[in-house]
Amino acid sequence: MASIDLNCDMGEGFGAWEMGDDAAMLEIVTSANVACGFHAGDPIVMRRTLALARDRGIGVGAHPGFLDLWGFGRRVIKGDTPEELEAQVVYQIGALQGIAKAVGHKVTHVKAHGALSNVAMVEDAVALAIGRAIQSVDPTLAYMVLPGTALERAAVELGLPVVREVFADRTYEDDATLTSRKIAGSVIHDAEVAAERVLRMVEEQAVTSRSGKRIPVPVDTVCVHGDTPGAVGIARRIRERLEQAGIRLVALKDRPA
Amino acid sequence: MASIDLNCDMGEGFGAWEMGDDAAMLEIVTSANVACGFHAGDPIVMRRTLALARDRGIGVGAHPGFLDLWGFGRRVIKGDTPEELEAQVVYQIGALQGIAKAVGHKVTHVKAHGALSNVAMVEDAVALAIGRAIQSVDPTLAYMVLPGTALERAAVELGLPVVREVFADRTYEDDATLTSRKIAGSVIHDAEVAAERVLRMVEEQAVTSRSGKRIPVPVDTVCVHGDTPGAVGIARRIRERLEQAGIRLVALKDRPA
Amino acid sequence: MASIDLNCDMGEGFGAWEMGDDAAMLEIVTSANVACGFHAGDPIVMRRTLALARDRGIGVGAHPGFLDLWGFGRRVIKGDTPEELEAQVVYQIGALQGIAKAVGHKVTHVKAHGALSNVAMVEDAVALAIGRAIQSVDPTLAYMVLPGTALERAAVELGLPVVREVFADRTYEDDATLTSRKIAGSVIHDAEVAAERVLRMVEEQAVTSRSGKRIPVPVDTVCVHGDTPGAVGIARRIRERLEQAGIRLVALKDRPA
Amino acid sequence: MASIDLNCDMGEGFGAWEMGDDAAMLEIVTSANVACGFHAGDPIVMRRTLALARDRGIGVGAHPGFLDLWGFGRRVIKGDTPEELEAQVVYQIGALQGIAKAVGHKVTHVKAHGALSNVAMVEDAVALAIGRAIQSVDPTLAYMVLPGTALERAAVELGLPVVREVFADRTYEDDATLTSRKIAGSVIHDAEVAAERVLRMVEEQAVTSRSGKRIPVPVDTVCVHGDTPGAVGIARRIRERLEQAGIRLVALKDRPA
Repeated sequence: MASIDLNCDMGEGFGAWEMGDDAAMLEIVTSANVACGFHAGDPIVMRRTLALARDRGIGVGAHPGFLDLWGFGRRVIKGDTPEELEAQVVYQIGALQGIAKAVGHKVTHVKAHGALSNVAMVEDAVALAIGRAIQSVDPTLAYMVLPGTALERAAVELGLPVVREVFADRTYEDDATLTSRKIAGSVIHDAEVAAERVLRMVEEQAVTSRSGKRIPVPVDTVCVHGDTPGAVGIARRIRERLEQAGIRLVALKDRPA
Repeated sequence: MASIDLNCDMGEGFGAWEMGDDAAMLEIVTSANVACGFHAGDPIVMRRTLALARDRGIGVGAHPGFLDLWGFGRRVIKGDTPEELEAQVVYQIGALQGIAKAVGHKVTHVKAHGALSNVAMVEDAVALAIGRAIQSVDPTLAYMVLPGTALERAAVELGLPVVREVFADRTYEDDATLTSRKIAGSVIHDAEVAAERVLRMVEEQAVTSRSGKRIPVPVDTVCVHGDTPGAVGIARRIRERLEQAGIRLVALKDRPA
Repeated sequence: MASIDLNCDMGEGFGAWEMGDDAAMLEIVTSANVACGFHAGDPIVMRRTLALARDRGIGVGAHPGFLDLWGFGRRVIKGDTPEELEAQVVYQIGALQGIAKAVGHKVTHVKAHGALSNVAMVEDAVALAIGRAIQSVDPTLAYMVLPGTALERAAVELGLPVVREVFADRTYEDDATLTSRKIAGSVIHDAEVAAERVLRMVEEQAVTSRSGKRIPVPVDTVCVHGDTPGAVGIARRIRERLEQAGIRLVALKDRPA
Repeated sequence: MASIDLNCDMGEGFGAWEMGDDAAMLEIVTSANVACGFHAGDPIVMRRTLALARDRGIGVGAHPGFLDLWGFGRRVIKGDTPEELEAQVVYQIGALQGIAKAVGHKVTHVKAHGALSNVAMVEDAVALAIGRAIQSVDPTLAYMVLPGTALERAAVELGLPVVREVFADRTYEDDATLTSRKIAGSVIHDAEVAAERVLRMVEEQAVTSRSGKRIPVPVDTVCVHGDTPGAVGIARRIRERLEQAGIRLVALKDRPA
């Protein structure tokens, strides 16, 4: 029987400020990408998120970003060398591993956040810096990547476990990259449409571009969002459709190697 | 043959700002307490410090503090519960462990910094929170404490490996606590005087108070400073006197259990 | 005809994070205490808040706090001298004045936030430090204070314009201080009860303690909250009751001197 | 008699960390560009710097940068709109004006720092955003710019008072722009060479490029550095040479309009 992982960014509050409905999303997804305090999250939020994930058997990954609380990690910070970025990612993974150890859970993957991810999709040096950070801390951690990007190339080149993800709410171009958000229709807001697309991507192990081109890609996990209006409803519908189609929801951490 | 560890706070720069002469101190001490980014330090500084410590065979400990870069962790922040402080310490230890793993070194002790240490010396709940943080991340980490304080009580109560330290440049009261800095003469600035006192404390395994009372305490390590005027000279003289007296300088990490 | 000001803390978001329903509260209150970036708020939020206040004729005050985004200014930071606190308050007032100037509005009062206010209520040195900060930047700014506290004493001693406030949702002790939040019933959650109490305080220019003692205090403004569940509803009901009783809602800035 | 202003970045410490030798530079220059807390500086440092400048009759300008203490404002942060950058600059100018008011001094110019300046030299939208920030807070503030850049164009377009600066320790290209630091010889470390070049630029009101081309530019102020090795010595020599040549050192604030 086919299986798939659903991943979602979580733990994106900071102090008195909250973001998204983590409790609701933790009932739906199988893996959580947890902010590590650089663009969001703090030790308290991280511990709460990991304890919840542990209780529900949900896998957790480090979700490192630029040191930019004000910009929520969505602004590109230019000027650090790859070695400097590597140290920043190591720090964030280590911090989350510490929290995981303390609550009796385990970090099993790493997914770059926001602007750091955007840069790493196109700059090999940055994607490799993130990969080397992962490798130097724990080479069994999976590197979550978008197929066809520098992220994937780096993961493969370094020999890290690779997890390839597709997006539930975004359309694709003929080269398997995401359609720019600036183009009308590139973001899918309808739960049924999103669920139908996800089901097809998982069953076909392929994405279909806006022009109709079918591009085979291994689909290990589907990224759903938790912080946009209607997000929880869309995620829930996706899970239902997958389950109705007989596809099991299995956390990355529980996949056979 | 008697042996002793010399420890010093290090890695206290931040970005473009530097603090202390780490390179000089790394030639003298056997253990480094490394700032973890909350009151000082950053991923780059931490990595550089740990790489130097690794190259020179120097032990490293996490040196967690309050989240207070502006105050350098010297201001007490009141309002966090012990559980919240515990999470903050876990985060900092984990981050340093990540960096240590990445450079091929190992964190072997934890010493609280500045205001966090001051509070933990007198508040059992805070000392225990730090201790539980250590225990939950790695129960083999040694808890560096001042004898006779809540820090020592917490370490003993939790069954953690304990490392008891004395200060090279401070006088003591009859209850083995440090004389307040506000009292004239409480801080020793003369290298010979400091070296002589250290030698005596190490040989006698005791501190002698201002009133002349001799108080037996196990002395596992001597704290020397690196960021005050003349600090390097004092530390160097202490090391010389110890070596001349036939006392070996051995890092905590290299002590027989 | 009697008149009163209603004040509310606002602009307490930070970057991607939001707090409270400022738009709704700006329809109800006559003065806004605007966070200045130390415990909440940022230049974008400050500008948006001041532009809205300007459009609606609402007065604005600086709402300085400890430099503690993570703790939302609710944690006491101990260790700064009064002179150092004074500089921090000056900085925050100046920053908000700059924003006010840029959008064509004007800062007319100052109210300390959270833990800084709590300390200043009981420590004269801190209350005076805030007062001197106000005076040195602009001696026409009103100092918003709780009657019977060190805040009020400082404002009077320095000869600053004083604005005395009462709280809509808190009970009082016989010495006119607020009942500790730890005591059951000290926080009022019922809109009718709160509105009735406010009406009485404004009409009688007095607070009535839990024991029934009536303590005359000048009531220049009533503090309502915007960030608790039901907050908007309570504030709206208070305004309605005041208006029904023929009391005009007038911003501090529009009061006759 | 000819006159010139010498300007230097100052107040670039943060908390326990120091940067440069402000006391020495304040004996040499006539204008100080003071960090406003975003990339360096804090309320205490700002107040100390402005009090010193006031005592010595030295003019002060706001030196706003990106919100990036860790990167000292030297990293470009991409993602803010011009309107968002404008608010950030307004905030920083306002904060410094508050401090200036409190100590009895006055902010009279604005000079962008580091990466913000680098971006503003080539992006008109950013240079205009800074200019609009200045204009909205106080249109009598001078905009310090490099001739031939977007900075100068913005200042002229907005009708702000313009102050054109040249660099004491940098070589120029044929289009009056600075030679990239990556090119050997672009930074001048010799005090005599620097002093000779400055004297010529001031006397000729022109810069001479590496190729020998003489480019007329109004020279209102000369930027000297205080945080590099030998910086104080170079600055002192420049001042001496100017004085020996009969050129008066006059702060921007004291120039006839």
